[in-house]
Amino acid sequence: MGMLDGKKRKIYLETGADALLVETDFLRRYLTGFYSTDGYVILREDSCVFVADPRYFEAAEKALAGTDVEVAEGSNSKALELLFGVKRLGIPFPFTDLSRAEALKNERFELVDCMPALKEAMLYKTEREISLIQVACDIAEEALLSLLPEIKEGMKEREVAALLEYRMRRLGASGTSFETIVAFGENGSVPHHETGDRALKFGDPVLIDFGCKYEGYCSDCTRTFLFGDDGRHGEFKKAYAEVLKAHELVKEQVVAGMTGKEADEIARGSLRKAGLDRYFTHSLGHGIGLQIHEYPVLSPRGGEVLQDGMVFSDEPGVYLRGEFGIRIEDSVYLKDGKVRSFMKKTGRELAIL
Amino acid sequence: MGMLDGKKRKIYLETGADALLVETDFLRRYLTGFYSTDGYVILREDSCVFVADPRYFEAAEKALAGTDVEVAEGSNSKALELLFGVKRLGIPFPFTDLSRAEALKNERFELVDCMPALKEAMLYKTEREISLIQVACDIAEEALLSLLPEIKEGMKEREVAALLEYRMRRLGASGTSFETIVAFGENGSVPHHETGDRALKFGDPVLIDFGCKYEGYCSDCTRTFLFGDDGRHGEFKKAYAEVLKAHELVKEQVVAGMTGKEADEIARGSLRKAGLDRYFTHSLGHGIGLQIHEYPVLSPRGGEVLQDGMVFSDEPGVYLRGEFGIRIEDSVYLKDGKVRSFMKKTGRELAIL
Repeated sequence: MGMLDGKKRKIYLETGADALLVETDFLRRYLTGFYSTDGYVILREDSCVFVADPRYFEAAEKALAGTDVEVAEGSNSKALELLFGVKRLGIPFPFTDLSRAEALKNERFELVDCMPALKEAMLYKTEREISLIQVACDIAEEALLSLLPEIKEGMKEREVAALLEYRMRRLGASGTSFETIVAFGENGSVPHHETGDRALKFGDPVLIDFGCKYEGYCSDCTRTFLFGDDGRHGEFKKAYAEVLKAHELVKEQVVAGMTGKEADEIARGSLRKAGLDRYFTHSLGHGIGLQIHEYPVLSPRGGEVLQDGMVFSDEPGVYLRGEFGIRIEDSVYLKDGKVRSFMKKTGRELAIL
Repeated sequence: MGMLDGKKRKIYLETGADALLVETDFLRRYLTGFYSTDGYVILREDSCVFVADPRYFEAAEKALAGTDVEVAEGSNSKALELLFGVKRLGIPFPFTDLSRAEALKNERFELVDCMPALKEAMLYKTEREISLIQVACDIAEEALLSLLPEIKEGMKEREVAALLEYRMRRLGASGTSFETIVAFGENGSVPHHETGDRALKFGDPVLIDFGCKYEGYCSDCTRTFLFGDDGRHGEFKKAYAEVLKAHELVKEQVVAGMTGKEADEIARGSLRKAGLDRYFTHSLGHGIGLQIHEYPVLSPRGGEVLQDGMVFSDEPGVYLRGEFGIRIEDSVYLKDGKVRSFMKKTGRELAIL
């Protein structure tokens, strides 16, 4: 067992409880680095114990040897035993249901929310986390690139989504990071379109918003294409160029120290000059990590200050109801004060399939 | 707007609150039949209102016309407005996080758990629900049947899972109902094996536990095969025959009126006679519906009485550590007092691939 790392100690101290009890899958994974569908993490000032049930005990012991995480075998009762004497117990309120909270109150714990401290720590990705997100992004892009030549007239949105997901899985993803969106033609104008049975026609815009998970970490990417150019795409192409401009401006101009609101305004202001800002109906971006929607928030109300180590999406878009939608999205991060994109394989210029 | 249906009224009355507020995706879907990633359902004695945000309002109005569900446009503030005057508010405790509960308490609501009443109602599937689960099961079985000839020596567990998921998606599933388990050889002896990079060898047992979702409803199926018979499978085949016997006995002997415990004992007792019960390390089955694990529970501690309309898994298994695992699982339901299987396409006899 090593010394408790600085992040964990900070989470403990900032929560201000006697101990933390974390039962949520992705938070357990964040604290231990170990994946399990079950278990309890108990964090104190100078120790972190993972209580694993027998199914996971051996694997956890092996995986966590030499780290700052100890492993104990057991379940809820073992966790409660280890918490003997604790009065103020830190738990993540947004991920603790009321039934569990009642049960813990019956054990005479005084409950404190440890999520603010966890959220603060999770804002800053370690190099290991950045490299896992990089793999998730590489897989997503490679899958897309190999898919594009397979897209044919008459295919359904659902088929294209299925093929893309299959390719990500084959390349090593454990699954998607959210429900893949494939929108043909006018369906693209619904930002959260539910992928369905619409068949692809010559001249359709094709919007694909997708991502996968690798070792728990998410990727998020959107590309918009034209499936054949039927010569009636003047408005679409003009709008595409403006969305791309907004997307690239964010990469050039966002620097550490800006707020999420200021970053959002770089894209929104650019679209405003082109008279398109009223069609940009969502936020510029969101944090990405073990969850697909994390902090920081890049929106007109995003007050967080962007800093090195933060990972987020750069995804301006415009949606002309019943006509088309365009979104161009990279997963990016801040390093040495500047924006770096995880997306290195696919282009952002308009491609005609 | 129609009269409020009997199930909803019963849920309302059994909860004993002035109104119910339901925000959880699958529970919202249960009460309205409408799928959305957002929204609020407010249930009273004689009305059910779905508060939909602008993204979903039009579609919800169209889908719910003529049903007993009214649609209103808005968000949290609209829901609170509609709840004006309500004191005792029913919410599902196991699906309400502490942060949300605090916010509701600040609105001066007295919170009551409506989950017991919802759980009781959801135990009994309607004909529509049974038919949706049937589609989810048909898709899963069809996908498996078309996959089997594609399984070749050297393929990785991960590849087989990806192919199977792709086929389910193509056949109309919206996704998997849980993470697909593909376990080759000795990996099968871990009941919750994480599908990985193990390559298939001649003579390996192949365990596949999988399912998909259709209109929100889940299927769940497990089949165990031999990939080539290398002549050293005497013990495996003996165990397979015993698991199959236990599986079939459940279908023959479980009748409405039995408890989950009695059903479990039919399988466990049969394996006990063969000296294999100590390798049957989990429960016989679990309820299936909008969630992959619902009620009833069929286990040595399952006190619920099984009744017509209940849907559950029949999945005995044996796991010989480091050697092999065998599980045979159908999704089944009770009708006219007897067990009917949803699985009509794939055999349960041992197949050599």
